[in-house]
Order: sequence, then structure tokens, then C-alpha cells
Amino acid sequence: MAATGGDVKLLGFWASPFVMRVKIALNLKSEGYESLDEVLGTKSELLLKSNPVYKMIPVLIHEGKPICESMVIVEYVDEVWAGPGPSIVPSDPTDRAVARFWATYIDDKLPSAVRTIIGVLKGNKAEAVEQIAAMLPLLEEAFKIYSKGKDFFGGDTIGYLDIALGSCLGWIRAVEKIVGVKLLDEEVVPLLVGWSKRFCVDGAVISVMPKADDLVEFSKAL
Amino acid sequence: MAATGGDVKLLGFWASPFVMRVKIALNLKSEGYESLDEVLGTKSELLLKSNPVYKMIPVLIHEGKPICESMVIVEYVDEVWAGPGPSIVPSDPTDRAVARFWATYIDDKLPSAVRTIIGVLKGNKAEAVEQIAAMLPLLEEAFKIYSKGKDFFGGDTIGYLDIALGSCLGWIRAVEKIVGVKLLDEEVVPLLVGWSKRFCVDGAVISVMPKADDLVEFSKAL
Repeated sequence: MAATGGDVKLLGFWASPFVMRVKIALNLKSEGYESLDEVLGTKSELLLKSNPVYKMIPVLIHEGKPICESMVIVEYVDEVWAGPGPSIVPSDPTDRAVARFWATYIDDKLPSAVRTIIGVLKGNKAEAVEQIAAMLPLLEEAFKIYSKGKDFFGGDTIGYLDIALGSCLGWIRAVEKIVGVKLLDEEVVPLLVGWSKRFCVDGAVISVMPKADDLVEFSKAL
Repeated sequence: MAATGGDVKLLGFWASPFVMRVKIALNLKSEGYESLDEVLGTKSELLLKSNPVYKMIPVLIHEGKPICESMVIVEYVDEVWAGPGPSIVPSDPTDRAVARFWATYIDDKLPSAVRTIIGVLKGNKAEAVEQIAAMLPLLEEAFKIYSKGKDFFGGDTIGYLDIALGSCLGWIRAVEKIVGVKLLDEEVVPLLVGWSKRFCVDGAVISVMPKADDLVEFSKAL
């Protein structure tokens, strides 16, 4: 996607699901951006200056102003580039609260479990796999209720909760390969499996979703 | 505040800063509600039914629909009872993102530190005190930047970030008494000390802010 004259910069890293969230949101809005990847194990001056509290990616720098935290950035992108298309955050207050609730749940449980499994966090790996396996049926049930028979959590198009969970699909697939367990199992969570396939081939996602094999290799190098 | 004919119920507990957030938001909107306190150590049928994922307070039940997670509920209240008064969430997308960023930071760091200090979570208590002491100067700096010389983070009136941090003031004061350390020190964070005094006497807050001494007693009983 073409850059918009340097107005929009994204400090990121190819393997980060949190960075991917921002890329998907910008893609959904057809908004070009300059992608500046951090070098693994170092932190750029721009990152340290732009996110002095956490010193972490992603940071969106829009007209010189840094915006931090992936789902905060997603909401910012949705508000600033509102446009004529469907909004990312649901328009109904209840749907909005539901999407935010499940996104919070995902961030509370999933990243720490994945980090434990790949050895970046200390902890019981088998328990972390169990934790992911226990999450998915809850999300299957949520999909059944909130998608209302449509393709995505957000309805006909990718929305807030699709981005929150979908950005983690590469790592869920990588974890399946690392531990040799099928987590996205068609017999257990058929709706989520169908959703994950639609999500990954969406035009806003396909170019930014890392391959599971690449993530497996990357996790070995960590 | 009078209940609105049973339309709005809040499942809560007097000592919970997260419940207080919702009460402050409803008070700011002059919205009456039925307050249903949970009994310590048990979970009501209504709570288990309304928040089956976390089984935790607060839950706002609005016209039979449960809304969970404190800051998600605050946004919901702001959207549903928009009214003519100032909104809780800032209207500018950048201010909004900043407020959400700092609220996420507070929830990431503060509750776990307090829980460690009162012995509900395992961990190094001295480090937890240090963590709170390190947070406050960052929040002082944020206040300097974002309040723009006004009374609150949100400007002239209490807003999203005021609620996120202000709801924790009772517990910060309780921690000061428990460990015998001044955290909200006028010499270190003078702006925050002034802000905290204004926040605690605000009409939307004063009736729902627990006394630090009561929280100290409560923490001994836990």
C-alpha cells in the first residue's frame, strides 16, 4: 500500500500480532502508511521517544503524534479515518461493549499463554496449552451469538473483535505445530475454524498475516 | 440516587475500585441504579449468569442485558446516557487514545501492586510499593500535559482517565497506611495531590469513595 507522504508511520515488527492489528485496521481503511520495523533485541530512538512508558511496539505516528497500545490504535484509526465504509468498532453501544469485553479477555489470556509455550515467559507449558484450548470454545459460543449468522464477529465485514482475535491466528497455528496439538479443531470449534479461514484470506489481512512456519522458526531463535 | 424502576442494576461490592468506576460514571450522568452488593466469598446466581466468563464484579445490567469489565461499562454508560452534559470519554480522537492508553497502563500496573501489598497476590511487597511510587511521577507528568491547566485529566470535569485512576485513590491511601509510606507526596507529585483532593470531593464521587481506614480493616479480614 502506498505511503501517504510520511503522515502515517507505524513502528512495528513482522511477527507481532499487536502490530498486525494496526496494519489490518489501516488496510481496512485503505490508508497508506510507512512501515518502520524495529530490529530484534534493540529499540530505536524513535520508539523510545514515541512510547517512553512501555517502550513497546506498535506505535502509530500520525502527523507527528504517537498513539500507543494496539487496540487503542485500532479505535483511533477507526475514528480518524471514518470514511463511508463500515466502521471497525460496532455502532451499537451494546455490541461495542461486547466486542471490547471479548477483546480484553483475549488480551488477558492469549498472549501470556503463547509466550509461555514458546519459552519467553516462565510457566507451565502444558497448562498454557490447556488455557488456549479452554478459551476457544468460549469464543466459538461468542461467535455463534454475536456474528448473527454472518461471516465475522463484526457482521459482514471484519470488525474490532475479528481484529483482536484474528491477529493471533498465526501464533495459534504456530503453537499447534510447536506442541503437536490441534487447537483450532473443526470437531470442537467448527464456526471458529470457518471464520479463521475467511479472516486469513480477506484482502486487508492476507498480505500481513505471517506464515505459521516462519513464526515457528522465529520462536526457536528467541 | 433513586433507582430508575429496576432498569439499571449494578452487581458490585463497596470496596471494589472497579465497581466505583461504574458508580461514578452513573452519578456523572445523574442516572439512578439499583446497587446489588455481592457477599464476600460467595458469588450470586445473578453474577454467575451475567458474567459467566470471569464471574467477577462489576456487572451492569441494563434492561436485562449484562455489560462486564469496568472501563467497558464506563464507555457504555457514556454512550447510552449521552445527554447534554460533558462526555466522559474525550471527544477528540487523540485525547481519547491518550486517555485509553493511560487507563490501560493503570490497570496493567496498579491493581496487581495493591493486591500484592495486601497479601491477596503472592509477590515481593517492597517491589510492589516501589512500582506504585514509580507510576505516580509518570501520571503527574501526564496530568501536566493533558489537563492543560484545568482541574481534571478530562478538563473542567471528571473524565475517563480521572475515573480510571481516581477510583484507586482509596486503596492508594490505604496502602500508605498499611506500609507507612507516603505515596501521594505533595513534594513529589503536587499536581496529582491537588487533583486527588478535587476528585474526592466531587459530587459524583464523595458518596461512593470508601474511607482508607475502612479499606485497611477490610484488607486485614481478607
